Amino acid sequence: MPDAEAVRHWMGFDLGGTKMLAQVYDDNWNVLAKERKRIHPGTGAKGGVDRILETIHDALKKANLTPKDLHGIGIGCPGPIEMSKGLLLALPNLGWQGVPLKERLEESLGCPVAVLNDVDAGIYAEYRKGAGQGARCVIGVFAGTGIGGGCVYQGEILRGSTASCFEIGHIQVMSNGPRCGCGQRGCLESVSSRLAIAAQCARAAYRGDAPHLLEASGTDIAKIRSGALKGSIDAGDEVVDTIIKEAARYIGIAVGSVVNLVSPDVVVLGGGLVEAMPDLFVTQVAKAANKRVMPAYRDQFKVVPAALKDDAGVLGAALWAEFTLQPRHKNS
Amino acid sequence: MPDAEAVRHWMGFDLGGTKMLAQVYDDNWNVLAKERKRIHPGTGAKGGVDRILETIHDALKKANLTPKDLHGIGIGCPGPIEMSKGLLLALPNLGWQGVPLKERLEESLGCPVAVLNDVDAGIYAEYRKGAGQGARCVIGVFAGTGIGGGCVYQGEILRGSTASCFEIGHIQVMSNGPRCGCGQRGCLESVSSRLAIAAQCARAAYRGDAPHLLEASGTDIAKIRSGALKGSIDAGDEVVDTIIKEAARYIGIAVGSVVNLVSPDVVVLGGGLVEAMPDLFVTQVAKAANKRVMPAYRDQFKVVPAALKDDAGVLGAALWAEFTLQPRHKNS
Repeated sequence: MPDAEAVRHWMGFDLGGTKMLAQVYDDNWNVLAKERKRIHPGTGAKGGVDRILETIHDALKKANLTPKDLHGIGIGCPGPIEMSKGLLLALPNLGWQGVPLKERLEESLGCPVAVLNDVDAGIYAEYRKGAGQGARCVIGVFAGTGIGGGCVYQGEILRGSTASCFEIGHIQVMSNGPRCGCGQRGCLESVSSRLAIAAQCARAAYRGDAPHLLEASGTDIAKIRSGALKGSIDAGDEVVDTIIKEAARYIGIAVGSVVNLVSPDVVVLGGGLVEAMPDLFVTQVAKAANKRVMPAYRDQFKVVPAALKDDAGVLGAALWAEFTLQPRHKNS
Repeated sequence: MPDAEAVRHWMGFDLGGTKMLAQVYDDNWNVLAKERKRIHPGTGAKGGVDRILETIHDALKKANLTPKDLHGIGIGCPGPIEMSKGLLLALPNLGWQGVPLKERLEESLGCPVAVLNDVDAGIYAEYRKGAGQGARCVIGVFAGTGIGGGCVYQGEILRGSTASCFEIGHIQVMSNGPRCGCGQRGCLESVSSRLAIAAQCARAAYRGDAPHLLEASGTDIAKIRSGALKGSIDAGDEVVDTIIKEAARYIGIAVGSVVNLVSPDVVVLGGGLVEAMPDLFVTQVAKAANKRVMPAYRDQFKVVPAALKDDAGVLGAALWAEFTLQPRHKNS
């Protein structure tokens, strides 16, 4: 029956390290309903999947829909994914390993599910609806607590042999650099993430070289947020400005190496650090990257701030579901 | 007429820094004829294109063919290419700039021409007929006088926004490393190319630490070839072994960063250095790369030596022409 096909609904889902968010979209990508829940720690993958289902059902209830009304659900997860199987390989923060998320959710809901990495979801949203629209090749660098990356190449998320890829935070930028969470040394993330910047600024604050930061945030790196860093620069802490520009320069060096490899049209910068200081990051990264790249690529790519904010990940997951899932027939 | 279509001929062409090679293939990729010529220095792009045409005509003559008998010609060039236009952007060694090679040759020959980077041609040949057959994603690292790279992703050469790409020799592996020919510091090529290795070994030879190398090749880095390096290791020059293993380790670090980005199925190692010491390079690169990559990619890619030798570039150019050019109708 035609009217059953009239409105196509999609759901985007963002699985975070501590909370989850589901959003229901109509076919114009308007948000009809959203539901946010905390993840109960210690309940394992089984408890986590149950909590995901609960969140999906509650979001649908708010929109007066059932799983049958969805063409599909896209789920962004903060870990490596085997996309073809919808397998979540690992979620280090929650201790999950090898969770067949697509299979479990499709069994329970009877509706198609696409699973992807959350950073890939964010850059895919920028490609479809944000700062990378229409680009043949767009890469994203998201600098916050860590540094994530993604690439959309000729309309599709670039994917690895057995897992999602484009881990720009883990290319080496300093031969004997700081230890990184991944176990290596000198990864971009170990040099330029908010945590890496906060560690340097905390030392400066402790020494008395960043008095405004010290007053605002103290020397606990967990409390030195991107907004506080920006505030202390504005208040006159020159050393904070120097530290952040140096970190941005390393992002530019990494971007330069990546440009020498894949030569994108657009480089989108996002994440908490960039949102707090977009001009600083765009300027420094573009400068360092252009200095670093081979002549054939110089000034052949744009560096731009992300256009979408918080909801990029959940929107991108829904958009990817639309792109990658064959819409099912409602009356079948 | 059907018999005019019976045999489809293709030509591969390899434009080198000092010489050029044309090969005519039948539809089973048997070589029917080949022609090699030196490039006359100082004749510029105009003289160079004329020389290319001369070489093509002479190769065809040897095979008793005319341009009308070719479905297409693939031309590999040692510089950045705008593939969609067949534009050779620059050939630094010969001082050529912005040569519309496809247009010029098609005008003169009346036969379709595809222009690509010579390293891309080599890795494409490995994908079609060599060590990377059937791989979803294969990357090539060719270490000789310089270090070139290429990537075949889902059946096609990965291409940049306005030029050929995957310049793995110019990703940074040492923060304040040696000066590179590209103008930057610490590029892989500046650390691990034959020239970089020869420069270190020449110093060791001069100091008396590599007596066999000194006897065989002296201290002129232009004369320290890959075979001589291998010979001096076999004769007992331990320092040469150490220097080359260290250089191979840096290739592994670069490959590790690239695996973190594109997560290939196969990494093909080639070039003069690798041909002289395949086991050393495969072992060291695989070890360093696996140490460097994130857990999700560990042991998820094979490192193998190139299967094709000298003719990979010219064969790959012909194969790419077959893949990318619409076969024309002979009787049109």
